[in-house]
Amino acid sequence: MFAPVLDNLKQNTPLVHNITNYVTVNDCANILLACGASPIMADDVQEVEDIIGICGGLNINIGTLNQQTIPSMYLAGVKANKLDKPVLLDPVGAGASALRTKTALHLMEAISFSVIRGNISEIKTLAAGTGTTHGVDADAADYVNEDNLQSMIAFAKHFAKQSNTILAITGAIDIVTDGKTAYVIRNGHPLMGRITGTGCMLSALTTAFVIANPYQTLEAVATAVCAMGLCGELAVQRMNALDGTASFRTYLIDAMSQLDTAALQDGAKYEIY
Amino acid sequence: MFAPVLDNLKQNTPLVHNITNYVTVNDCANILLACGASPIMADDVQEVEDIIGICGGLNINIGTLNQQTIPSMYLAGVKANKLDKPVLLDPVGAGASALRTKTALHLMEAISFSVIRGNISEIKTLAAGTGTTHGVDADAADYVNEDNLQSMIAFAKHFAKQSNTILAITGAIDIVTDGKTAYVIRNGHPLMGRITGTGCMLSALTTAFVIANPYQTLEAVATAVCAMGLCGELAVQRMNALDGTASFRTYLIDAMSQLDTAALQDGAKYEIY
Amino acid sequence: MFAPVLDNLKQNTPLVHNITNYVTVNDCANILLACGASPIMADDVQEVEDIIGICGGLNINIGTLNQQTIPSMYLAGVKANKLDKPVLLDPVGAGASALRTKTALHLMEAISFSVIRGNISEIKTLAAGTGTTHGVDADAADYVNEDNLQSMIAFAKHFAKQSNTILAITGAIDIVTDGKTAYVIRNGHPLMGRITGTGCMLSALTTAFVIANPYQTLEAVATAVCAMGLCGELAVQRMNALDGTASFRTYLIDAMSQLDTAALQDGAKYEIY
Repeated sequence: MFAPVLDNLKQNTPLVHNITNYVTVNDCANILLACGASPIMADDVQEVEDIIGICGGLNINIGTLNQQTIPSMYLAGVKANKLDKPVLLDPVGAGASALRTKTALHLMEAISFSVIRGNISEIKTLAAGTGTTHGVDADAADYVNEDNLQSMIAFAKHFAKQSNTILAITGAIDIVTDGKTAYVIRNGHPLMGRITGTGCMLSALTTAFVIANPYQTLEAVATAVCAMGLCGELAVQRMNALDGTASFRTYLIDAMSQLDTAALQDGAKYEIY
Repeated sequence: MFAPVLDNLKQNTPLVHNITNYVTVNDCANILLACGASPIMADDVQEVEDIIGICGGLNINIGTLNQQTIPSMYLAGVKANKLDKPVLLDPVGAGASALRTKTALHLMEAISFSVIRGNISEIKTLAAGTGTTHGVDADAADYVNEDNLQSMIAFAKHFAKQSNTILAITGAIDIVTDGKTAYVIRNGHPLMGRITGTGCMLSALTTAFVIANPYQTLEAVATAVCAMGLCGELAVQRMNALDGTASFRTYLIDAMSQLDTAALQDGAKYEIY
Repeated sequence: MFAPVLDNLKQNTPLVHNITNYVTVNDCANILLACGASPIMADDVQEVEDIIGICGGLNINIGTLNQQTIPSMYLAGVKANKLDKPVLLDPVGAGASALRTKTALHLMEAISFSVIRGNISEIKTLAAGTGTTHGVDADAADYVNEDNLQSMIAFAKHFAKQSNTILAITGAIDIVTDGKTAYVIRNGHPLMGRITGTGCMLSALTTAFVIANPYQTLEAVATAVCAMGLCGELAVQRMNALDGTASFRTYLIDAMSQLDTAALQDGAKYEIY
């Protein structure tokens, strides 16, 4: 799946509209540029409809949502739907506050999302309409693991079908599904949880991959997830004894800026269910 | 003091609620993850009370305060007090504008702070209720130095006692005091002033240390200050001829992600008054 | 021109007030500290007049403008004019939305800008009062190149004269002009377009150079543009086979923190028209 998907991205150089949080926004811009896409960040109600008009798609991330940006998320998302441009939802911290949970759920009602990407805790919150998360990380008790893999795949397929979206549940093991087919992806490294922004960057990246591959959205999402995880692995391989989490972050973005189809085909670890 | 304090942090993995500025927020998130804690950034009035409810403590930083986030600071701080969770104030730029000075002083009236951390200029502003700063850096004439050390310690103890808080005045020489005991800390390096965010990162870090050490808050603050300064020193030791301030920033966070009790005990430079 | 200009910056250590976007704000703060200046970011209407009062000049960047910060831009800019302090406009994304175009044009009516710095697409938008940009990057068809260089210089001189400002149009080839004299600058590297923030950093840097050189503003702007491009070149020279865009960003800021007059004189590539 990788050759056309990554090559399409490099040739399409998609422009991605991001309404995102101020914590990891710089990382999101840099990972988009690293992979060959271009970022625009714009969140004022008076301009988001213009901006999505010139972009290929929209990445909505509720990481530091507020009263000013929530209405912009609706406006931009509805406009993107009208223009038939893909929209991704990253429900950062859904379950951590009523505002985040409610906003994520209402966005799902108002907007048709091509992709929803989150950790298992956030996705469970969306699925249940209620729930709690340990901040923005998945509750340890809820990680996808070998023992619960089959039931997690079934849950993911069910929720994807019900929500008419492609679902990406990411963690130590990732599940990407459109409700029928599921990719189980085993790329990545625990250090990715020791820096902020790997989830947010993946959502931005996924939006770019999806824009550039309108006829194979599921493969585009799965490829983005493999690519991010693989870059995490390549970053770890470069680390010397003194390198820590900040060098790892640098190396991860470096790896994305050098990633090609051959390396991706060589390094991707996935199964199809 | 270091062994239990740092070990408690590593075991507790505290979740820290940050209402902070958008300049250094990414650094704050990454230093928290580097030291073993977890960050949540949330500043909307509709969610801050929920968020502090699931966190161990609160870090309030007025670096880019605005009309939307100031009410959130009050709500979250008051709620944290009710829940008996520690709250830290970083009065960034107090003295640089009436809004910052007034907000910092009003926050001190409304909220009981476990810790206040700032440079000497900011702390003097709080002490006087008036003042000016050269931006967010301490006025050169006001640095704590060997000549004025004793009077600065006396000033710090007096203000800490009066404000019923633990005070951390940081600069070339740091003073940490609860009003009775004062730690004078000589870790650090001038390059720490050549990157943005060392003060903000220290405040986030200190909040994490304090959450994880409820029965030895003074030692927790002093340990955080030593740790940050020591990581600055370790970062400088790694620098090669071409490395400049950006590499230094990377190495500093790297060092924090690798810091252990043995290195901290070996490298900490402090006296008790 | 370099010796006094860069030396003046190092001696003056100007304090720069930035009203800027949240995408690249950390980079802007760090490049200012790297070059020897100090940053303050402040964008609330209640404090911007105070802040410009204690700063040497103002950098207005409309990258993520919103209803809260637009009024602050006017207040701060008008106050800076009254205080006779230089103001720079970076019209990020002018042409990408009506709000950005309108805001940039209105700011030009209300405020006397010492410098306007943008890519050719943004500047053409300002010149025409209308236009479109491919996000925040210049439209490929509109790059300044050898074939159109003379007409671009003529356009730049005309617009600078008409707007009574110093204009810096940056891209593969940069043009800096006060309407009479034009510097054509050939420093830089294509990788600068593969990271976010090189334009924003240059605007912050330029503001610092201008503050420190009140009697040679044109030379100050041209020097800043040369310096930024040269640091991009020096950064590329350090890159090893695994280094990508994130390492490049680190090396670029590193280079700025080490730049001296000798290196600048040696590496600057410019012609005067």
